[in-house]
Amino acid sequence: MSTAHLWTDEEAATNSRVAAVFADIRATRKSDFINNFWRALANQPDLLERTWNTIKQVMIAPSALDPLTKEMIYIAVSSANNCGYCIHSHTAAARAKGMTEAQHAELNAILALASQTNSIATTLQIPIDPVFLIE
Amino acid sequence: MSTAHLWTDEEAATNSRVAAVFADIRATRKSDFINNFWRALANQPDLLERTWNTIKQVMIAPSALDPLTKEMIYIAVSSANNCGYCIHSHTAAARAKGMTEAQHAELNAILALASQTNSIATTLQIPIDPVFLIE
Amino acid sequence: MSTAHLWTDEEAATNSRVAAVFADIRATRKSDFINNFWRALANQPDLLERTWNTIKQVMIAPSALDPLTKEMIYIAVSSANNCGYCIHSHTAAARAKGMTEAQHAELNAILALASQTNSIATTLQIPIDPVFLIE
Amino acid sequence: MSTAHLWTDEEAATNSRVAAVFADIRATRKSDFINNFWRALANQPDLLERTWNTIKQVMIAPSALDPLTKEMIYIAVSSANNCGYCIHSHTAAARAKGMTEAQHAELNAILALASQTNSIATTLQIPIDPVFLIE
Amino acid sequence: MSTAHLWTDEEAATNSRVAAVFADIRATRKSDFINNFWRALANQPDLLERTWNTIKQVMIAPSALDPLTKEMIYIAVSSANNCGYCIHSHTAAARAKGMTEAQHAELNAILALASQTNSIATTLQIPIDPVFLIE
Amino acid sequence: MSTAHLWTDEEAATNSRVAAVFADIRATRKSDFINNFWRALANQPDLLERTWNTIKQVMIAPSALDPLTKEMIYIAVSSANNCGYCIHSHTAAARAKGMTEAQHAELNAILALASQTNSIATTLQIPIDPVFLIE
Repeated sequence: MSTAHLWTDEEAATNSRVAAVFADIRATRKSDFINNFWRALANQPDLLERTWNTIKQVMIAPSALDPLTKEMIYIAVSSANNCGYCIHSHTAAARAKGMTEAQHAELNAILALASQTNSIATTLQIPIDPVFLIE
Repeated sequence: MSTAHLWTDEEAATNSRVAAVFADIRATRKSDFINNFWRALANQPDLLERTWNTIKQVMIAPSALDPLTKEMIYIAVSSANNCGYCIHSHTAAARAKGMTEAQHAELNAILALASQTNSIATTLQIPIDPVFLIE
Repeated sequence: MSTAHLWTDEEAATNSRVAAVFADIRATRKSDFINNFWRALANQPDLLERTWNTIKQVMIAPSALDPLTKEMIYIAVSSANNCGYCIHSHTAAARAKGMTEAQHAELNAILALASQTNSIATTLQIPIDPVFLIE
Repeated sequence: MSTAHLWTDEEAATNSRVAAVFADIRATRKSDFINNFWRALANQPDLLERTWNTIKQVMIAPSALDPLTKEMIYIAVSSANNCGYCIHSHTAAARAKGMTEAQHAELNAILALASQTNSIATTLQIPIDPVFLIE
Repeated sequence: MSTAHLWTDEEAATNSRVAAVFADIRATRKSDFINNFWRALANQPDLLERTWNTIKQVMIAPSALDPLTKEMIYIAVSSANNCGYCIHSHTAAARAKGMTEAQHAELNAILALASQTNSIATTLQIPIDPVFLIE
Repeated sequence: MSTAHLWTDEEAATNSRVAAVFADIRATRKSDFINNFWRALANQPDLLERTWNTIKQVMIAPSALDPLTKEMIYIAVSSANNCGYCIHSHTAAARAKGMTEAQHAELNAILALASQTNSIATTLQIPIDPVFLIE
């Protein structure tokens, strides 16, 4: 069901770069669970390190947006890109960060509405109003 | 530049349903400006009314998410769907609702990151961890 | 505005394969007009011939679907794929084949609705009902 | 396999708005079967009502396009948007409305052709012919 | 799991056009294995023949690009279009043509990077530098 | 035409991080030209640095794939994602790295073919052959 091997913990222990990222994921998340995304990325230590470091900078470090808002934006992109894995993992992450059923319902409603108006603007090839352009 | 006629205010005045929606947009937004999206939709009063009513329910009525968060989610979908018109109009709307440059920068960073991990999960066809499935 | 050269009629006359396709397009459509799509494809006579032959087989030859229905399906795909060139050219073609304003409006409404329910089914990762599966 | 709970008939009976929509679906379709799409939407009565009402207006009410044409356009969008659930449910619906194997084959051929020419126009960034622009 | 019947070898033997394509696939690939893609296309002999002939011309005939490069480009498109079937089949094909784990890893890294910069250019609606335009 | 300000060289000189990246781009590419992508990213020094560093690691450092192959894969993704800016800039880059007209034509033919078979596999929801699955 995958085009890349998923690394077990035993295999990860044999590669110091993979082992270090797995350890950091566990420490950062305060959980022993490593999801398949990282087990698949273990085949590419460069991409594994780069992706995890970016996740930490963008999604975990304190910033101008709160953690739950960031997860909901992540779900929005994943849904529009039709990434089933990502929708499942980030919906779980959003719930873990406090997303209520009402918020999930509203997110779903916004995605449905935006998809609809995106389609209309594209089908009708509506020209951008000059007032929306930045100087 | 469009596959549908854009209605002027003079034309809108000749159709009571279109005129009513345009008036409600102006009253709701407290602005005389009607952007091209609505001028193109005026060709279809049914869709015009339905879309504007949904916008009011989902994006404007008080709800479980604040207005700025909703606009940023809208931008996320519009970017992933590659709708230039929608990106321009909702980025302007988000700025009008207080989106700072730091928040826009962060939104951009999340969209870039999610697109990247979406691509990885899809290329590697990573199987969904059972723990992410809802019972 | 293009990443390939657009062939003029003078240039087309210098290549017998391109000249033959251009002549067949003109004869089939009973019009002297050759749109940019074919002028760009002229750089690749193989692809030019293959594409034009397929257009003739699928879109022009008498078949189980009428010509206007076929054009509206073409617009639907082009809109969902966000191909501005294709939306413009096939909307023009559909109008030339008799698409009324009411039909265009309805097509737009269906595309908007389908985009919306596609988004919902994807965001919620709704499992396929067994009854929909073919044996 | 879903990120939202699927409502059983017993659960639907406990919410008057959900129960009313389910009853209307059954009456309109003259069938006791409620597919998973609606069972997932039951978590959001607002979206459930809005979506069902739009389906009735756009897909079921008599209009400028016949019901089978509408279903085939729906499949076209769902395929281009890669919504597996929607492809399955609307292919079943199209068959129920009389789509023959020959028509399904032709639909598939048009989607394949449009995807191909969409790709060409995008890769070559072909400029829109002025004649395609509406005044 | 499919919206079209998958033809068995016994069924293929009953249709001379399908039988001929299946025989040519086996002879060309020097393998008895016919994958599901062709078994599904067997319902449409026209599309079956056209698609197989194009595959032979574009992917198999000697050309300006080597066979492995062509398969990796095919995976790139299939991943961006989110076609699980195509990602699986063309990753297998690329491996059969010699794609190493290092090359697969690098392909994955390029797809991830391109998806990221595509998202950035789209979110920011960056104008095309005049120097990139062809005369 | 953009939703973010494009930094001039004068503005870049006022921010040491932006100035450093611009200088590195110029030194690496042995050209004074900085394209708009980087001028737009200058608003976000974090993302600017991260993106440029990844470009250097993935696209410029010697690796298992040659530079031209990498650019063609980049174009493939950009076309499937419909990023006009990216198609223009990476087609120019591929030409600068030696892409011939024959190779560009072939790339276009592969993208057209893959888009077509992606569409077929999706419309018919063809099940993955077990032999394609990795253990």
